[in-house]
Amino acid sequence: MKISCTKSSLMNGINIVSKAVSTKSTMTNLQCILIESSLSEIRLIANDIELGIETVIEGTITEAGKIALDAKLLNDIVRKLPESEIIIETNANCQANIRCERSKFNIPGTSGDDFNYLPEVEKNKYISLSQFTLKEVIRQTIFSISDQENTKIMTGELFEVNGDVLKVVSLDGHRISIRKVQLKESFEGMKVIVPGKTLNDVSKILTGGVEDEIRLYVTDKHILFEFEQTKVVSRLLEGEFYRIEQMLSNDYETKFTINKKEFLDCIDRSSLFIKESDKKPIIMNIESSNIYLKIDSSLGSMNEEIEIKKEGKDLKIGFNPKFLMDALRVIDDEEVDVYMVNAKSPCFIRNEDNSYIYLILPVSIAA
Amino acid sequence: MKISCTKSSLMNGINIVSKAVSTKSTMTNLQCILIESSLSEIRLIANDIELGIETVIEGTITEAGKIALDAKLLNDIVRKLPESEIIIETNANCQANIRCERSKFNIPGTSGDDFNYLPEVEKNKYISLSQFTLKEVIRQTIFSISDQENTKIMTGELFEVNGDVLKVVSLDGHRISIRKVQLKESFEGMKVIVPGKTLNDVSKILTGGVEDEIRLYVTDKHILFEFEQTKVVSRLLEGEFYRIEQMLSNDYETKFTINKKEFLDCIDRSSLFIKESDKKPIIMNIESSNIYLKIDSSLGSMNEEIEIKKEGKDLKIGFNPKFLMDALRVIDDEEVDVYMVNAKSPCFIRNEDNSYIYLILPVSIAA
Repeated sequence: MKISCTKSSLMNGINIVSKAVSTKSTMTNLQCILIESSLSEIRLIANDIELGIETVIEGTITEAGKIALDAKLLNDIVRKLPESEIIIETNANCQANIRCERSKFNIPGTSGDDFNYLPEVEKNKYISLSQFTLKEVIRQTIFSISDQENTKIMTGELFEVNGDVLKVVSLDGHRISIRKVQLKESFEGMKVIVPGKTLNDVSKILTGGVEDEIRLYVTDKHILFEFEQTKVVSRLLEGEFYRIEQMLSNDYETKFTINKKEFLDCIDRSSLFIKESDKKPIIMNIESSNIYLKIDSSLGSMNEEIEIKKEGKDLKIGFNPKFLMDALRVIDDEEVDVYMVNAKSPCFIRNEDNSYIYLILPVSIAA
Repeated sequence: MKISCTKSSLMNGINIVSKAVSTKSTMTNLQCILIESSLSEIRLIANDIELGIETVIEGTITEAGKIALDAKLLNDIVRKLPESEIIIETNANCQANIRCERSKFNIPGTSGDDFNYLPEVEKNKYISLSQFTLKEVIRQTIFSISDQENTKIMTGELFEVNGDVLKVVSLDGHRISIRKVQLKESFEGMKVIVPGKTLNDVSKILTGGVEDEIRLYVTDKHILFEFEQTKVVSRLLEGEFYRIEQMLSNDYETKFTINKKEFLDCIDRSSLFIKESDKKPIIMNIESSNIYLKIDSSLGSMNEEIEIKKEGKDLKIGFNPKFLMDALRVIDDEEVDVYMVNAKSPCFIRNEDNSYIYLILPVSIAA
């Protein structure tokens, strides 16, 4: 193989596929990037079995071929090269010779004959949306997936399409995050559970433009994200997602409207008094036109009040401040509506049209 | 005690004195900031015994007094408060009540009666220079102090004044860094060894303005840095500094002039091939109008050439690339002069007037 390309296009390609390079495995191929060149295009591929990424980079092909190179070393070398043309040439011993201006590198590789290519994904069922929307919806829900591998399904997110609406759901046993996105057209229904790691990785690769399209193709086993010159294929999580409808309700006894920033900043300050060893809830007293927030731990105490617009009963209720903060941080509205039933029932932060719903379980407090 | 001040002035004061808060010790006072208010000024003090810092902040004093508060908690609380007025009031139980807008915090403190104040430093002998100059000279030498506590003197830097010249020296057994700074006037001679940690901390606190003065006062045991509203007192390292004059020489067999950035970038690339377990030197072949750099390890190999202007003999010599990079990174000149005698003698990177001298020992290479 002999190819040449600019540093920026090679670096960009390496950055994209590196998300699918295993950092743990000692199986050589999982830590490698395959550079494969036909007579018409140069392709970079990485695959850690859970996730595979391939991308096409611009360049000039002198001789077709392929080689698998250590991803970290390749990344480091290219990053440190000047902004100039890079030539990669392989020899019969699977050595790669990398040249740029007056630098010459020789690094060992493997033939790539046993490299794991991306699984073929049939392109029957798909949806299309903007990269910006996908990136946003991931950011707004990803924090409430579980990191417990024993509840595998909770480590992923539900992607469900009905007509022209995409619903994304994540939950971890203490809270549920639901976002609904209006698509530009209707698609065939789908319901899949995508691993959280895949979503995090895809989110990092996306440039995030409002005008830039991304297509998601699904089969029983896999999801394919296709955008620009890049394909990302991930396994889906198998199993039935939790039935969340029965946990949602529009009934409430107490509702208040609050300035989001004031509420978030106040809860953030209260979190200073939480020690890992002694998890205290933040206590809210919701009364007429104010909410009184209080936390009291061995480190000290905090009291604060915020003006609210309230409907319904007064209520005293406790929460893990982190759960409230996580939800408030990803809501862009200036004011939020909070709905509660009693001190033991879930609290809902949601907007009028339910395009977002954040359900958070309270923490029991001494009466 | 009852005082009030703006968030920004309190935060700024906390940031300054926090450099002298011990992060390791479990002796309460070493992890605290003392807030002490006379009728005329509010003072923050921290002291971890090696290093003590005090600074005066702007504010209104309602009642004089003092309290020692956990530095980390105080820092976290103030950081998360809104940009507004902060009131700190203590009670007879050594509790501090901190109020800002509608936030109220109560945190436990101690009386501060047994707090370690800064040692008194007699102001006989001093030098004055700009904060910018001090910050620069620290940055240009601090990388070659030793982190080995068993060679205590190498963990500090020599500050030596003769007339109107300040000379700063650091060394770690493999290299020596020397910077000479022209002072605005002549001062009484001094020769002290300042702990590297103190210099790092002072450097971080300095705003670094060219117009902002800093005064350094020294006694047998201590150095006092005084600037703006802040005093930093550090113990000096005791003992005799190494006699470096006998290691310096202006004789050379090979001299070359090279573009600094090209040289640095090339050596930086070569460092990719160094593994912790298998330290290979970078090998330079200095020939007529080129320097050929080469490194060869189990990870791969690199070859590169750079144009130079050479005087004297050809030479083949090996170096630890890190030592060359550290020195080149803090030289601001576009071109540097490198002087060598043979493959076993130290190499010097220095300028015409010797305002900087970087001595680096070579690594022996197989012939």
